[in-house]
Order: sequence, then C-alpha cells, then structure tokens
Amino acid sequence: MIRVLGISGSLRSGSHNTALLRAAAEEAPAGVTLELWDGLRAIPPYDADEDVVPGPPPVEQLRAAVREADAVLIATPEYNSSIPGALKNALDWASRPLATNVFRNKPVAVVGSSTGAFGAVWSQAETRKVLGAMGARVVDAELAVGHVEEKLDAHGRVADDDVRAGLREALELLVAETAPALVAA
Amino acid sequence: MIRVLGISGSLRSGSHNTALLRAAAEEAPAGVTLELWDGLRAIPPYDADEDVVPGPPPVEQLRAAVREADAVLIATPEYNSSIPGALKNALDWASRPLATNVFRNKPVAVVGSSTGAFGAVWSQAETRKVLGAMGARVVDAELAVGHVEEKLDAHGRVADDDVRAGLREALELLVAETAPALVAA
Repeated sequence: MIRVLGISGSLRSGSHNTALLRAAAEEAPAGVTLELWDGLRAIPPYDADEDVVPGPPPVEQLRAAVREADAVLIATPEYNSSIPGALKNALDWASRPLATNVFRNKPVAVVGSSTGAFGAVWSQAETRKVLGAMGARVVDAELAVGHVEEKLDAHGRVADDDVRAGLREALELLVAETAPALVAA
Repeated sequence: MIRVLGISGSLRSGSHNTALLRAAAEEAPAGVTLELWDGLRAIPPYDADEDVVPGPPPVEQLRAAVREADAVLIATPEYNSSIPGALKNALDWASRPLATNVFRNKPVAVVGSSTGAFGAVWSQAETRKVLGAMGARVVDAELAVGHVEEKLDAHGRVADDDVRAGLREALELLVAETAPALVAA
C-alpha cells in the first residue's frame, strides 16, 4: 500500500484546493490511499529559539505525518503572487534540521487552483522551488486549475473530467517516483 | 517628522535582521524616526473565513501600525531559498482587502542578512515581488548582508560601516519616496 499525505495550502472551510485533494483521494489508483493533513492551523510561526528537539507538538505531528507517508501531494492557492504564508511557515518548520528533514528524498507533487485564469502557477512554482531547496524529489506534475469555481458541483465536489484526470496523473507520477524508493528500502 | 515602521522577518531573540533594524533606527537622518513592530508572533495563519471586518485583533494592530507609518523598512532572513512563512503570512493578512490594503502606495524598502554568503537575496526578491503585487511603492534599496555574524559586535550591535551606510541609504530612499506623498496629501 502506498500512502500519500495531502496538504492543502488553504484553511478556508470551503477551500477549492482542499476539494482538489478530496477528489484526488477518490481518483487514487488501486493500492494507493490519500489522507488529508489538517494540522496547518495549529503550526506556530517559525522561531529559531523554539527549534529544539522535540519541536512544538503540532510541528512534530506534521513531521510524523510526512515521515510516515510514502509521498506528499500539495494543493495550494496563490496569495499575492506567491505561496501562502501559512503553508510556507509549515514547510519552514518541516525543513528542520535541513540535513535530515522529513521532506528530504520524499516524492512530492504540487498542484493548485485559483478563481483567476492562471491556477496559482506562481505559487506552485515557488512551492516547488522551496521543496527543492529542502531536498524533496519534486515530480513533474502540472495541474493549474483556473476558474476553479466553475469546475465544482453544488456540493463543492470536483466535477470536471480534465481536472480529475490531472489529479490521477499527479498520483501516478508520485507512485512511479515512490516505487523505486520502496524497492530500495 | 517622517515615521518609518521596521518589520523584522525573524522572531529569534538574537535575530541579526532585528539588529539591522535597531542600527537603522540609530542611523535615521534628522526628522526621521524608526519604530520596530513586534507583533509578528501573534498573527494567526491566514484564513479567508476569518477575513472579515474587523479582522483578528493582532491583524488590525499590524494594519494600524502600517497605516500610521509614512514608510516601512523590512529586514528579512531567508528560509529555504525564499521569504519566511511567518513574514509572508503577515503580509497576506495586511494585503486584505487588496484594493484598499494598507501597503498600497506605501513606500517600502527591503533589506536582509544571512550567515551565508548571499545576504538573503532570494528572500528579499520574493518579498519585493509580493509587496509589488500588493501595490506598495518598493524603493531600490539593495542591502544584502552576507556573513552577518561577522558584522556585529559582542553585544549584537551592527559594527560594520558599510552595513550602516547601506541602512542610511535605504532610509534616504524611503524619505525621498515619502516626501512627495506627504506634499500630495
């Protein structure tokens, strides 16, 4: 069984990006499960003075969730042309200590959506850059869902075939990147 | 009197970037005061569901501090090749509502330091991009303090003439950008 952790960059209860992750869970191929992490709200602002072993409990919970996952799927909105601060702050905590951080060598895919035309492409690009600096194995998933509100049904469920196919493809890329790691382990 | 608000991107008690802002306060030209904002730790993670009028009290305090300042000087470290998440999160809150956000048309300078060679240049660049997206008037201050720990004395005070000159220059650029705004107001 391949376990994927889903991380949404948005805290909004009706978040479009969280909806993407729920749809990804539905689209998961046989042998793959996707679980959503819901600890973002509890992560404190990064403070190097508090960056000790163990870190703050919500941070250790995030680290454990990433460590126990075989791969991570991040779905993010875009705030002010870049990564949401709260998501970046969680990654900052997760990146410590850098040499042995839980994202190192972890297969990660980044997707995103926005109500504008571009589907959070700049936020996604910055998120991939940050993950690369942390040593994650960022796969080449490219899913930028523009005008996302038009692609959900009345229940907030992703109702667009292309979007669902894009999520399947992201998961397949993660599985392909994960399998060698499992074999090697 | 021109009032500059200093915002440090680091929460660490011995922060090098906060030290830059303290030195900037000492270097302020006649007629200019620099006050440090110390509310970063209290800013909650941005949640669009909580983005109502008024916002959370720590957010309203940040907005008031920026509104009451004539200009802003940001000193930031670099985390994972980009802007610290906590600083970005504060800017995300401050950016709302976008059309009338408190940074719109506000003169802002960004400086930074790191213990590495490059002085947080990528973090500074991302911070300037974000501020530009928010409508701030970002001035062309360029102060990237590498190996910053070598430029502080035993009391953590900036002891390097070039760095202090760079801070003076950043303040002068802010004053030049601020004065026309004051005349127009």
